[in-house]
Amino acid sequence: SSMSSKKLLVDVDCGVDDAQAIMMALATPYVEVLGITCVHGNTNVENVCKNTLRVLQACNRLEIPVFRGAAKSILGNVISAGHFHGQDGLGDAPDPNAPGLDMLQMEGAVSALIRIVNENPGEVSLVATAPLTNLALAVRMEPSFPSKLKGLYIMGGNTESRGNTTVCAEFNFAADPEAAYIVLNDFLCPTYIASWEFTCYSKLPWSWCDDWLAQESEKARFMAQIFRHSMEESYSERSQAEMIDGMGFVSCDSYAMAAAIDNTFVTESDHMAVSVELTGTHTRGMMILDTLGMLKKTHKAFVMKKVNMVRFEQMMMDALK
Amino acid sequence: SSMSSKKLLVDVDCGVDDAQAIMMALATPYVEVLGITCVHGNTNVENVCKNTLRVLQACNRLEIPVFRGAAKSILGNVISAGHFHGQDGLGDAPDPNAPGLDMLQMEGAVSALIRIVNENPGEVSLVATAPLTNLALAVRMEPSFPSKLKGLYIMGGNTESRGNTTVCAEFNFAADPEAAYIVLNDFLCPTYIASWEFTCYSKLPWSWCDDWLAQESEKARFMAQIFRHSMEESYSERSQAEMIDGMGFVSCDSYAMAAAIDNTFVTESDHMAVSVELTGTHTRGMMILDTLGMLKKTHKAFVMKKVNMVRFEQMMMDALK
Amino acid sequence: SSMSSKKLLVDVDCGVDDAQAIMMALATPYVEVLGITCVHGNTNVENVCKNTLRVLQACNRLEIPVFRGAAKSILGNVISAGHFHGQDGLGDAPDPNAPGLDMLQMEGAVSALIRIVNENPGEVSLVATAPLTNLALAVRMEPSFPSKLKGLYIMGGNTESRGNTTVCAEFNFAADPEAAYIVLNDFLCPTYIASWEFTCYSKLPWSWCDDWLAQESEKARFMAQIFRHSMEESYSERSQAEMIDGMGFVSCDSYAMAAAIDNTFVTESDHMAVSVELTGTHTRGMMILDTLGMLKKTHKAFVMKKVNMVRFEQMMMDALK
Amino acid sequence: SSMSSKKLLVDVDCGVDDAQAIMMALATPYVEVLGITCVHGNTNVENVCKNTLRVLQACNRLEIPVFRGAAKSILGNVISAGHFHGQDGLGDAPDPNAPGLDMLQMEGAVSALIRIVNENPGEVSLVATAPLTNLALAVRMEPSFPSKLKGLYIMGGNTESRGNTTVCAEFNFAADPEAAYIVLNDFLCPTYIASWEFTCYSKLPWSWCDDWLAQESEKARFMAQIFRHSMEESYSERSQAEMIDGMGFVSCDSYAMAAAIDNTFVTESDHMAVSVELTGTHTRGMMILDTLGMLKKTHKAFVMKKVNMVRFEQMMMDALK
Ligand SMILES: [Ca+2]
Ligand SMILES: [Ca+2]
Ligand SMILES: [Ca+2]
Ligand SMILES: [Ca+2]
Repeated sequence: SSMSSKKLLVDVDCGVDDAQAIMMALATPYVEVLGITCVHGNTNVENVCKNTLRVLQACNRLEIPVFRGAAKSILGNVISAGHFHGQDGLGDAPDPNAPGLDMLQMEGAVSALIRIVNENPGEVSLVATAPLTNLALAVRMEPSFPSKLKGLYIMGGNTESRGNTTVCAEFNFAADPEAAYIVLNDFLCPTYIASWEFTCYSKLPWSWCDDWLAQESEKARFMAQIFRHSMEESYSERSQAEMIDGMGFVSCDSYAMAAAIDNTFVTESDHMAVSVELTGTHTRGMMILDTLGMLKKTHKAFVMKKVNMVRFEQMMMDALK
Repeated sequence: SSMSSKKLLVDVDCGVDDAQAIMMALATPYVEVLGITCVHGNTNVENVCKNTLRVLQACNRLEIPVFRGAAKSILGNVISAGHFHGQDGLGDAPDPNAPGLDMLQMEGAVSALIRIVNENPGEVSLVATAPLTNLALAVRMEPSFPSKLKGLYIMGGNTESRGNTTVCAEFNFAADPEAAYIVLNDFLCPTYIASWEFTCYSKLPWSWCDDWLAQESEKARFMAQIFRHSMEESYSERSQAEMIDGMGFVSCDSYAMAAAIDNTFVTESDHMAVSVELTGTHTRGMMILDTLGMLKKTHKAFVMKKVNMVRFEQMMMDALK
Repeated sequence: SSMSSKKLLVDVDCGVDDAQAIMMALATPYVEVLGITCVHGNTNVENVCKNTLRVLQACNRLEIPVFRGAAKSILGNVISAGHFHGQDGLGDAPDPNAPGLDMLQMEGAVSALIRIVNENPGEVSLVATAPLTNLALAVRMEPSFPSKLKGLYIMGGNTESRGNTTVCAEFNFAADPEAAYIVLNDFLCPTYIASWEFTCYSKLPWSWCDDWLAQESEKARFMAQIFRHSMEESYSERSQAEMIDGMGFVSCDSYAMAAAIDNTFVTESDHMAVSVELTGTHTRGMMILDTLGMLKKTHKAFVMKKVNMVRFEQMMMDALK
Repeated sequence: SSMSSKKLLVDVDCGVDDAQAIMMALATPYVEVLGITCVHGNTNVENVCKNTLRVLQACNRLEIPVFRGAAKSILGNVISAGHFHGQDGLGDAPDPNAPGLDMLQMEGAVSALIRIVNENPGEVSLVATAPLTNLALAVRMEPSFPSKLKGLYIMGGNTESRGNTTVCAEFNFAADPEAAYIVLNDFLCPTYIASWEFTCYSKLPWSWCDDWLAQESEKARFMAQIFRHSMEESYSERSQAEMIDGMGFVSCDSYAMAAAIDNTFVTESDHMAVSVELTGTHTRGMMILDTLGMLKKTHKAFVMKKVNMVRFEQMMMDALK
């Protein structure tokens, strides 16, 4: 059924919405998080590792293994996330009791992804809420990696050329266009994409967010602390220019996670070949929807269009309980 | 007022929707068409000239001067329009009594554009419903050309990366990306753009089209004849893949014309810097909307979003009376 | 014979080496210069016009018509020439008695090129020692223009990816890559190219230059004045980095002119299809030699490899007599 | 000294010249080959593995570990090597007694490169005579990998835009431009490059090759067998078009190997920043020499210009003894 036991691997650049997505997974009884792999993105990979450990501590789940991954993109650069989530990626609200990096696994992220999927062939859903560098390296190191996945759930890309990072590109894809290209071409497993535009169209009202954060729980207090910076930032001119279809609370990464957790979550999607523009002056990193069938690709992804928002609110609410 | 006397120049690649746009202009009493310039596009420039003369003949307006323009794009290539409007661009419904090319002016299109605008400084609205080669050459030959225009009305480009010719590009822009780039950068006059997506969102029902063509008039019979091919073509798999937001009758070029004819026609638009991608693998020719203000351009275009559809139906209906 | 009467049109961005090339033509008895067209390049097109008039005045040949051409490239930008020839393009050695811009023809450069070649079909050799904007516009305005030329002589491009302006591109091509592309594709007349590398390999010793300038003549004194800035500049770190195969005096534009004046001047050339890279990150504007025959072009250019240096020294020497 | 003990890792796409380079290393007493890693290129990676094992068998050195590496480029495509070395990469001269793929190590190439260099920090010279995919993956998997190398010796790239695979690009770089880009940017160790043009300028006469193959030895007989196909191919029109500066025997990969074996082999080189063009229409994969210092890179490579040809002939001759 839609709620049968699920094994997840989560690849994050742990900003605040990655944290929300992770907490959604941890709060779901039938979900087993086999590991969390870290990658550059919202902040440097060191901070991403620290932030991930903090989220696990806040949920009392430090037994989940965390792995350090790529510090830069396939081509070797890093772009700035503009500090939407704060310089440290988690709202610049440091915790003196945060776990140290000694809690990280010795094994690297790419190696761990390959090993864990090998140990659970056909059973793992991979949720990727960050630049796709680790995934791209995994398929190059082990070409059979994607075929052993149950499914791939990506937050990234855009469908209407509405960039939030460059003129036409969304952050996760813009931060490593080659990785996104590799993943969309070589991961032939069932693939679900929560694009930037989709997440904007599926936003929650800020009033809902207030109720959400007002819950009486350790997790809600933690979230309120790390989310304050982004909430304020969302009123900036730049953030308002990025936003599509009105203001509100867009927990981008949580949509990919919700789709991985609950098979019935996505109620409408385009089943379509997709790719990534690698060479444009203004469009490098933009996701390409092959609406005309010109790319001649046999593999098609599910590009999310409509989701069960009642279920989403419930899963989000449960995440902080 | 919105219906005061208007001087128009029209630049066409006279396919069927260019014909519809021209006929709309000719049917408007307060509009004076100073000339029609021809350019490659739906068919070769010879056919475009012939088609334009046929349209004028059908409207008994052969006194309007027609000028031959560029036979190929700025870089020198021509792309196929895929014969949506037939091989001859006008439905492959030849007319034995069509006017000959001896009816063309000796003066070339670019020279004529410059001269006529010089003779009517600040008074001419230029309606461009074709690849923008002639306009790009005009500004390079006479840099002050755009500043002497009253306004520029373009059918072309796209706003949501939904290509109808290449994966991400609309036909008029894809047929000459450099020309579109030059025009969007160097025409600093008031500029209105009817994009492919916009025209699709503003389509008319096919049932309306039936009534339109059923009018008792020479013009309606002419239109029924030249439109038959495109109407059949619109049921092809490819045409249906191109179409956005459901099937129907999209007279693309007529929206740019309607905006030029009636100042009140456009009821909502984005006032935004725009450009054209020149170098992408999948995105060459795609229009760029600078929603984030990253292009640092001072000139902004009016990208049409909503128009007065009642008025549009009326103008279309009048065009065939 | 090689020295029979020659009709020339010269298209310049009149820096010091354009001046040297023009003076070579003026000093050749059997050469008739039908006109000089000006274009942006070493300096803005206004200065180019002024400089050209000054050169003609220094040679007492102000009866030769001078035409103003394009102020910017096909795409609309201008790049800095780095002031190798001084800010004014002619050594920043102003002349209070310089002719005014009222000496310019009213007709524009592109129009003049087309008209003069139409008046002398098959007889005109066109020498282009500047960004190729005017030529590109001429062929788009009048597609038959190249077929009426006797020959085309270009200084520009490079053959070994040794850029002098960008990492891999020579100035004249880098200043308008699209124009160079158009000209190399659409000028199907006999075409001779003096590339940057070729002119470097064919340089003269500075000691020769000293003798050249020491001639007792008005022209030599004029040249010494306008050339001082470039001579000093040639010892800069940047100029030395640009130079290929040792230091010396490279009068780039004069090689194209010498080839146009004397059919026997070029003693070895590659007859090869050529094009221009339009889209590279480091290679935009670089000339492409199709050594492998992969471009499938039927037209081939003569890419100069060896020239008669004794004849060159003689023509250069005569230019200042 | 130049001939002190050397530890080598060799990364190959074992065509015939890779075989020649490997045999040169095996014949050098003071050289210890720690392993050979295989990658796609002249043929598929399976064949590359088989060919490498055959070369080791021919030299009685099957104790050297061979590792399978990447089957395709970073972006995931493979280009055809045009079968210059035969379909199987080794002259289509199959050996019924060839070793099986069971002789391969279980460990993958990238993992082995990282491990072996970790076990011999600062002591290993890496010779790369193939598309650079394995090396690029190694530095992304282990960023400290290059800093632990003693030196890197690459056969690949070009210096004068004389392509042998695409119009402007050499095979090893054209086969994986992103990998070449990554390696030239991220391998900050001493780096020596034997470009296509350099190897052509340093060719041996075919008469020398005849003597070389006529040696009385098992190895010479093996070489004569696998080399026949390429020798015949070298008379094809295409091969002659690729060749620079006259015909002859160009054992490309052996120059990189000779430089790794003997510190005194390279007698002249340009010490210069280099990169790779990733986005050109005709220039994708072309090596960029930053002669003007515009790339602002601190790391510079040694681009070989002159080598000790007497020493080269001797090392080549010894390889077949
Ligand atoms: Ca994220
Ligand atoms: Ca049209
Ligand atoms: Ca010049
Ligand atoms: Ca090789």
